[in-house]
Amino acid sequence: MKQSVRYLLKNFEALDQQEVTVYGWVKSNRAQKAFGFINLNDGTAFDTLQVVYESEFLDNFGSVSKYRVGSAIKAKGILTLTPNRRDPFEIKAREVELIGDSSEDYPIQPKRHTREFLRENAHLRPRTNLFNAVFRVRSILTHAIHSFFQERDFIHVATPIITASDAEGAGETFGVSMLDIKNPPLTEAKEIDYSKDFFQKKTNLTVSGQLEAEAFALSFRDVYTFGPTFRAENSNTKTHASEFWMLEPEIAFADLEDDMDLAEKMVKYLIKYIKEKAPKELEFFNRFVEKGLLKKLDYVLNSPFVRVTHHEAVKALKEAKKKFENTPDFNEDFATEHEKYLVKHFGGPVFIYDWPKNIKAFYMRLNDDQETVAAMDLLVPGSGELIGGSQREERLELLEKRMKEMNVPKEELQWYLDLRRYGSCKHAGYGMGFDRMLMYLTGIKNIRDVIPFPRTPRNCEF
Amino acid sequence: MKQSVRYLLKNFEALDQQEVTVYGWVKSNRAQKAFGFINLNDGTAFDTLQVVYESEFLDNFGSVSKYRVGSAIKAKGILTLTPNRRDPFEIKAREVELIGDSSEDYPIQPKRHTREFLRENAHLRPRTNLFNAVFRVRSILTHAIHSFFQERDFIHVATPIITASDAEGAGETFGVSMLDIKNPPLTEAKEIDYSKDFFQKKTNLTVSGQLEAEAFALSFRDVYTFGPTFRAENSNTKTHASEFWMLEPEIAFADLEDDMDLAEKMVKYLIKYIKEKAPKELEFFNRFVEKGLLKKLDYVLNSPFVRVTHHEAVKALKEAKKKFENTPDFNEDFATEHEKYLVKHFGGPVFIYDWPKNIKAFYMRLNDDQETVAAMDLLVPGSGELIGGSQREERLELLEKRMKEMNVPKEELQWYLDLRRYGSCKHAGYGMGFDRMLMYLTGIKNIRDVIPFPRTPRNCEF
Repeated sequence: MKQSVRYLLKNFEALDQQEVTVYGWVKSNRAQKAFGFINLNDGTAFDTLQVVYESEFLDNFGSVSKYRVGSAIKAKGILTLTPNRRDPFEIKAREVELIGDSSEDYPIQPKRHTREFLRENAHLRPRTNLFNAVFRVRSILTHAIHSFFQERDFIHVATPIITASDAEGAGETFGVSMLDIKNPPLTEAKEIDYSKDFFQKKTNLTVSGQLEAEAFALSFRDVYTFGPTFRAENSNTKTHASEFWMLEPEIAFADLEDDMDLAEKMVKYLIKYIKEKAPKELEFFNRFVEKGLLKKLDYVLNSPFVRVTHHEAVKALKEAKKKFENTPDFNEDFATEHEKYLVKHFGGPVFIYDWPKNIKAFYMRLNDDQETVAAMDLLVPGSGELIGGSQREERLELLEKRMKEMNVPKEELQWYLDLRRYGSCKHAGYGMGFDRMLMYLTGIKNIRDVIPFPRTPRNCEF
Repeated sequence: MKQSVRYLLKNFEALDQQEVTVYGWVKSNRAQKAFGFINLNDGTAFDTLQVVYESEFLDNFGSVSKYRVGSAIKAKGILTLTPNRRDPFEIKAREVELIGDSSEDYPIQPKRHTREFLRENAHLRPRTNLFNAVFRVRSILTHAIHSFFQERDFIHVATPIITASDAEGAGETFGVSMLDIKNPPLTEAKEIDYSKDFFQKKTNLTVSGQLEAEAFALSFRDVYTFGPTFRAENSNTKTHASEFWMLEPEIAFADLEDDMDLAEKMVKYLIKYIKEKAPKELEFFNRFVEKGLLKKLDYVLNSPFVRVTHHEAVKALKEAKKKFENTPDFNEDFATEHEKYLVKHFGGPVFIYDWPKNIKAFYMRLNDDQETVAAMDLLVPGSGELIGGSQREERLELLEKRMKEMNVPKEELQWYLDLRRYGSCKHAGYGMGFDRMLMYLTGIKNIRDVIPFPRTPRNCEF
């Protein structure tokens, strides 16, 4: 019989004076002459348990008092309420046993470590308070996303990771190959002969599951894909990873308004869910990672999301008293300084919609003005863009025209065009970088610190 | 205002004589002189709706009567209970509108298509009854897995897809590279210079997240990873895909018994969950895909899972009256004929545990007999192995010895050995091929038919 720390923290009131058994790791150990205290955690909760051990009860008091930080131990004892102290209860040990020693050079000592040092020890960093909280919230957020969509009868579709198309043109892709690079097969024209490769064609890692999700939306109405995506961009910034998780819902018989409605509902649901399931963790982030985090999240939770067109937004920027380093332009994307201003100016989260077509992807739906497309970005306080989406071009002729204009090869996307040939309908969707959402919810400023084992240029450890 | 077919199927009793609006695709359309019937589905449910349209109410009766299969339409009308007919209600149309036409050559006609044909039309096949059911169950099973583990406070860990190690030796891996294959950089020794590659080393697609999950288990106690994994095996069978999803839970302070307990609980939970959430779909599979499916699943649900050692199992095979093509061997894995016999012989699902160490992976825990390791396979009726797992070797010296014996490079796994240096403890886990589990639950015999866009040798379409 063993109980988790989480279980004891939840049920201690009913367990007063009962014997309990916990297994966990020593977070700290302070010994006096005849008694000592071990702070114990088994990873199931943010808080630790206090185990009090006394020479009176333990034959091995001497050894126990020397247990090192990071050791795995078993502790059996009497759960005892301690109403007048910081912790509501403690375990009065009757038996403490070493399960797995931790050597002197254990890297995670109870002191402040730099984030860089902890990244180098990504296999051990979840044992710290910070990363215990971050990765628990990551797990809860994962489930929050599934729950939100499953409760609404969305179909999860596992879109492929290996793909032969880079139709979105979203950036450089990682090549996937089984060819012998030292001695690759060549065609007569001395080009690499990918017909000899595993898939008989050139393949790469996906940058988005959207196009495949569209096929499923035009069968199931409401779908979402949620999984790893990849960018082979050689840029080392705090917000870019080479491998990251992306959420992409896609809804049929729906337009851009429906798309924004869904995004707003989802963001609020996710914040509410995390607040409910991880209050201790959020408190910790609020205190030690981003002061004002809770206020920021509550503000988003309680604000209606403003919706303005790109044109209106640029106009607001142009009319601003503030001088910007980058001149706002009706035909351009925003700079970070613009996004910050807009969020302040419009007083909260703001959807910018109807973007100039020339800076957007081929599949976005052309508006009647012939100049803008039905695209939207969600800007939130304290961050830039959190979500980007669009209504998709459902009209075959217009889509084909746009593909031609933008040099998107038609042959390999016949299946995508089929969706416009057979029962086409209005549909829309958006993408949300999962890891960036997690950064937003935790206040963590470096994407390397919200991914268990991050992959970035020149870094593929573990 | 629009209602989903799923909503109407659930709530029709309260909606009698009310006006409803549905959007969906025409599954069939039969017109008489003055009235007609459209079977409509929007993908949200397995069943269709019947829309009755009459010339009396529709100005465009002539056009509506010609709507082709696959067209997207809008239908507004009065929901009317029809207690004496097969369907419990119908929609008496007051307005029917074509949203998106479907051309004559629409591939998904209301007739029998071969599975091969439908695979070539993977973007349209979810519009068939079969694949509507398969992919809905796939989505529900995904959520069932998350729910099972999250309800038990397991932490989901997103283990990396791109990795530099093939430590498990689980098979051939896909190379991931940004090098120019036509002109790769070479070292002085004329080898490919991977230090010039994106990650400054040779990288590939993961075959398992287990080792990384172990790091998290030794921080969080109970964790699971659930995501895509890859095998570059050039074998075209019905049960192998190059890209497939794998579930891998990992539990700390736990041994092989705990591992088998968890696997048994999970399998039963998943079956129960699917039975509850997708009864129509299961009925359909039971009727048209695998006769006896429901009986098989109920049998698994209601049987205690037998647990026998590999030695006992081989003994049972040797004592069998049946002649096997492959002679059972105390030092070998089972052939399919053996697995079938064992499941019958032991009367249900059976865990085979304590396997000869020489046919198992380096990380499995050596038993006291020095000959076997604490590994387990779960065999189930009507299929072979559904789950494979083990207790992990938590003792540093024994693990290092085993790695040396099996030529597992130590340098790149120092982090993995660290888990045995700092607070090591008993831990165990297992892997379940998600797509194979889905095959088991649906009766589908080809893995290409449970994956939305399957990747197999020489096949990477869509």
